[in-house]
Amino acid sequence: MAAKGKQSQMAQWNRSGYFRSSGSRDVNPDLQAERQTASFSVERLTTILDGGADNTRTRRAVEAVIHSDPGFSRENQYFQSQNERYEAAVRKSVHLKEKMHQMGWTENRPEIKYCYRALGGDLAFNVHRVFKNSILALGTDEQIAKWIPPADKYHIIGTYAQTELGHGTFLRGLETTAVFDISTQEFTLNTPKISAMKWWPGDLGRSATHAVVFAQLYIKGKCYGLHAFILQIRSLCDHSPVPGVIVGDIGPKMNFEHIDNGYLMLQNINIPRENMLSRFSQVLPDGTYVKQGSDKINYLTMIVTRVQMLWTEVIPMLLRACTIAIRYSVVRRQSKLNPSDPEAKILDYQTQQQKLLPLLATAYAFHFMNAFVNEFYNKGYTEIKQGNFDSLPELHALTSGLKAIITDYCTAGAEVCLRACGGHGYSALSGLPFLYTKLVASCIYEGENTVLFLQTARFLVKCLAAAHSGQPIPASVAYLSSVGSGKCKAWTKTDFLKPDIYAEAYRHRATRLLGNAATKLQALVQSGAEQYEAWNKCTIQLVQAAKAHCHYIIVKNFIDTVEKLKNEAEIQKILKHLCDLFALHGIFSNTGDFLHAGYISGDQMDMVTASYLDLLAVIRNDAVPLADAFDFTDESLNSALGCYDGHIYQRLYEWAQKSPTNQQVSRAYARYLKPLFQSAPSKL
Amino acid sequence: MAAKGKQSQMAQWNRSGYFRSSGSRDVNPDLQAERQTASFSVERLTTILDGGADNTRTRRAVEAVIHSDPGFSRENQYFQSQNERYEAAVRKSVHLKEKMHQMGWTENRPEIKYCYRALGGDLAFNVHRVFKNSILALGTDEQIAKWIPPADKYHIIGTYAQTELGHGTFLRGLETTAVFDISTQEFTLNTPKISAMKWWPGDLGRSATHAVVFAQLYIKGKCYGLHAFILQIRSLCDHSPVPGVIVGDIGPKMNFEHIDNGYLMLQNINIPRENMLSRFSQVLPDGTYVKQGSDKINYLTMIVTRVQMLWTEVIPMLLRACTIAIRYSVVRRQSKLNPSDPEAKILDYQTQQQKLLPLLATAYAFHFMNAFVNEFYNKGYTEIKQGNFDSLPELHALTSGLKAIITDYCTAGAEVCLRACGGHGYSALSGLPFLYTKLVASCIYEGENTVLFLQTARFLVKCLAAAHSGQPIPASVAYLSSVGSGKCKAWTKTDFLKPDIYAEAYRHRATRLLGNAATKLQALVQSGAEQYEAWNKCTIQLVQAAKAHCHYIIVKNFIDTVEKLKNEAEIQKILKHLCDLFALHGIFSNTGDFLHAGYISGDQMDMVTASYLDLLAVIRNDAVPLADAFDFTDESLNSALGCYDGHIYQRLYEWAQKSPTNQQVSRAYARYLKPLFQSAPSKL
Repeated sequence: MAAKGKQSQMAQWNRSGYFRSSGSRDVNPDLQAERQTASFSVERLTTILDGGADNTRTRRAVEAVIHSDPGFSRENQYFQSQNERYEAAVRKSVHLKEKMHQMGWTENRPEIKYCYRALGGDLAFNVHRVFKNSILALGTDEQIAKWIPPADKYHIIGTYAQTELGHGTFLRGLETTAVFDISTQEFTLNTPKISAMKWWPGDLGRSATHAVVFAQLYIKGKCYGLHAFILQIRSLCDHSPVPGVIVGDIGPKMNFEHIDNGYLMLQNINIPRENMLSRFSQVLPDGTYVKQGSDKINYLTMIVTRVQMLWTEVIPMLLRACTIAIRYSVVRRQSKLNPSDPEAKILDYQTQQQKLLPLLATAYAFHFMNAFVNEFYNKGYTEIKQGNFDSLPELHALTSGLKAIITDYCTAGAEVCLRACGGHGYSALSGLPFLYTKLVASCIYEGENTVLFLQTARFLVKCLAAAHSGQPIPASVAYLSSVGSGKCKAWTKTDFLKPDIYAEAYRHRATRLLGNAATKLQALVQSGAEQYEAWNKCTIQLVQAAKAHCHYIIVKNFIDTVEKLKNEAEIQKILKHLCDLFALHGIFSNTGDFLHAGYISGDQMDMVTASYLDLLAVIRNDAVPLADAFDFTDESLNSALGCYDGHIYQRLYEWAQKSPTNQQVSRAYARYLKPLFQSAPSKL
Repeated sequence: MAAKGKQSQMAQWNRSGYFRSSGSRDVNPDLQAERQTASFSVERLTTILDGGADNTRTRRAVEAVIHSDPGFSRENQYFQSQNERYEAAVRKSVHLKEKMHQMGWTENRPEIKYCYRALGGDLAFNVHRVFKNSILALGTDEQIAKWIPPADKYHIIGTYAQTELGHGTFLRGLETTAVFDISTQEFTLNTPKISAMKWWPGDLGRSATHAVVFAQLYIKGKCYGLHAFILQIRSLCDHSPVPGVIVGDIGPKMNFEHIDNGYLMLQNINIPRENMLSRFSQVLPDGTYVKQGSDKINYLTMIVTRVQMLWTEVIPMLLRACTIAIRYSVVRRQSKLNPSDPEAKILDYQTQQQKLLPLLATAYAFHFMNAFVNEFYNKGYTEIKQGNFDSLPELHALTSGLKAIITDYCTAGAEVCLRACGGHGYSALSGLPFLYTKLVASCIYEGENTVLFLQTARFLVKCLAAAHSGQPIPASVAYLSSVGSGKCKAWTKTDFLKPDIYAEAYRHRATRLLGNAATKLQALVQSGAEQYEAWNKCTIQLVQAAKAHCHYIIVKNFIDTVEKLKNEAEIQKILKHLCDLFALHGIFSNTGDFLHAGYISGDQMDMVTASYLDLLAVIRNDAVPLADAFDFTDESLNSALGCYDGHIYQRLYEWAQKSPTNQQVSRAYARYLKPLFQSAPSKL
């Protein structure tokens, strides 16, 4: 009865125009006005970001296919339980496989990445792909021929079981064992302690039938270190665990509820000798251990995973968050700037510009950085496949540091966007809590960021030593051997809009921080400290140095990217502003690093601040077009605040109606409240 | 069958000692070792933190009562849906009311705050309390006599409906209207536009029967501004919405799922004249508007709410996060420091110390700051009640700035703790995602932090002008009128362990940043800019100045607190270290602020760094006892990683078993996967 009363009330109000449907075609006029004053062609910038008009066309065609299929709807995503999200992800993944077959999109064509973008990443079987990749990389031709075809067709689902309850980053510490028995020609696998239990692998908790398990190989009592083994963990008939296997889901997480991260215990699981992945190392029938080729190739798998995650997951999430927060900030009006004017768009407040516009610049900086890394990676990969491993250390150091700095910044950026939208940003319907909680995980998985920065630092310390002794060093660190000026050459605030000026400041900072850390390290060792002890005592400063190095690389790449756009005057101009903003914001936010040794003086820093604040006002005018250029569909953003038409309040209201809290009566009323309310005074 | 197989397998493994129950009495030896070397009495420090041994006794007695009652169990909290969490919160709140009655704990006794602590804050009817407070503050004696008794007994549940879809911080912009009709002696309330819909009030979505609604008062076509009105929104018989009312839940949020934040639309709701809260303003029967006394008292309500939230919610959450992360970091071992040693406790890595130990110092700094603010507030409250409003601006500025800086730091701190625990921190079972997602809201509600910093800045700018013209200024800003040295007087790194030295550095920084912002503001106005425009152009720098002011206040209060502990030598010593760490970490993290004008030189900054790094190693040794002293019960922490006994792996495993994902078979297998698996090759 209550529901019926509400419906008729609503109908009456709708007739009076109280609600304007968010499905109507008109755009919020405040948002529309922002688009009419763009200083450049948004469509042209979109094609540049996509890497060409062909890509834009393909992407939009894929989006049209995906969004017109109700099987891929994300409408109820924010209302689903962990179970429901898992189920939807499995359903969509199987459906996508069929759709791709139907459309003729094969695994290696570009459509797949656009599917992922359109679907916002909510798919299952991501670790199944790692399962396949590990077989392709570590397996023999026979093993590949046996396992890959059924995996490709989802006739089996695999997981990659490496991490244990007790060990993540320190692989040598993994405790799962695989003991070879010559008499049976089998390996016996065990997780002998609770800390040896596999914990976290995706697709393991409820889906996988098979696993690539990493275990310490023992032959005749001798340990040969970590190796990979394929085993079946669940029946292909009824999905029950294989005897000796205990497997399950690790429970709720901050996000990734669509993924069944799982645990796996093994007790005396016997598998045949041919189930050890044997491209690079083999156990012969008589127990002889044979090592073939190089196992450095393992590094390459980690590198490709990091490059891919930045491209497909991490950076796009910052672009999404910026799109949502910037569109919201020109529709939301709050308080007054001029007391005699109407309320102001919140993006007209300097503090809101300070929150969002440097992030927009960062989004562009990372997007362009990623393009560079992909190119660098592809070149390195080709060389490595040809047996030339020379570029591996540089590639590893570069991708480690960039993974860490980019995930750090994107995570912080998503939080800024969420908070910049106030209470409405905190609503799940904004989409921002989802982006933040997913991004924060990216700082931990595929290498914890502090560990990664220290790997980059270790490489940098080596390169610095090489440079000092006159040896050649790789291109990305060549600046370490150049001699720069001791003082910044800027005289006016506009000097700080010269890329040479700010690039040199970043270079100086990176060189100085690394030099100081290396000097301290050396001094500690010379004063008698053990190498490991000295290293630990320098790690805070080494992390700072690695960050400064990565920051320099990103600034430099942004500068280079802008310079190449000579034939795109309008776009080059706005991107130059963004590049300046990114660089000056970095100096403004880390003043101490530049002031410390007097490279930039206090007076010059005041010029940096002045130029930085000027740039905020410049970028403000193009903020919406710059966000529009990312060209996310409404379906893919899935945000009540971020839609193209800007009808934020209507959408918040309409979406809230779909919440289960409005569709089911809670037992709380009848059980706990009704008895109390009946005692209320009759006349109130 | 699968479940049975699992059980027998588990039983077999349990017999072999694979699992040690987390319920056993022994403590993880690594954690135990940390406790045996404490440099001070943990129990003594606990009583100091509690404000005396009596409080500690009372708290523990309350915790014993609450934790022994299964009705208050938080066991399944992380597995519950929004509906279930709401239902549990209502159930516990009603149960707590009965329990308090039974135990003789009245609303004003200290037990209530300990109940809240023991229950981790997961209770309903928090805004019901604000509903009551607003009637007590704004209502006449008759209104109080009518509404408070049934509200006290939960015979009615009220909400405080202020925020609208379109307006949060800017109260004057609220759009709900209340029009007085002389002929009927009634007010007619309306939410005339979609943006006028009340949105966010807690307890509104599914519970409340009544509301205090803020609306623009109109009499004979003239607007008299915002006033508060009591109205019934749901039937006391069947809970259906009153005709003309549309009410519901706003749907899922990042956290606070136990609260039914709601929306409310009003169409021609008529209420009698006596339902306007009329202590300070009245509408007479003939439509005459009468204003009585001062409405500045409204400020006081906001102040008390902020003081209370810091004390009961925000700061304890940082203490909880530190407890969890620090205990985890001495149980978790990963990788090696010395290659010939076993794996190291992760707290022995300098980078982990850098993450957690300054946070521990911050937790203490905030706890002590809060004690000061409470005292300051109580004194001011008494004066204000006596009609002396002199202290109101200072109290408002101080609590605004402290609310902003403390919620900012606690939120950032919870994220650091989460990430410092790696993947296991990301598991909901760590309790850390819960703390973070709750804390981030505190940066937005009860005043968005940027807005609050700017309110503090406005006060500071006024005080600075007063000081320059020789007028007296309040105690908390008196330092603005003192003349300090232009250079830091430290000669060695140990000089930076002198409170005078670092307090003076913070003072200098705050004075300089405020002075610069005020000078810029003045210059802009003098060059012809409108006041509002000039203010907006300075807001980024004004926020920096307000932060520096608050930072100084907190450092100064920590110093004063430590000095007062003369009779507690051991405890004074360790707290002095923490105070030094807090202060030096602040300088180390904001070097530019201190270097800019040359107050601290580059060489001196190197001494700061050296002293800061030394302190990390000192605090490292007492980290666990310092966290233990917060004395949170395991039930209240509700963390698989943070329990007193340190059995982190057992608990993660046992808790995961309770997840619904392990107790219900997903339809995903039968629907989507089984048909695929049946096509797998028979021989794999």
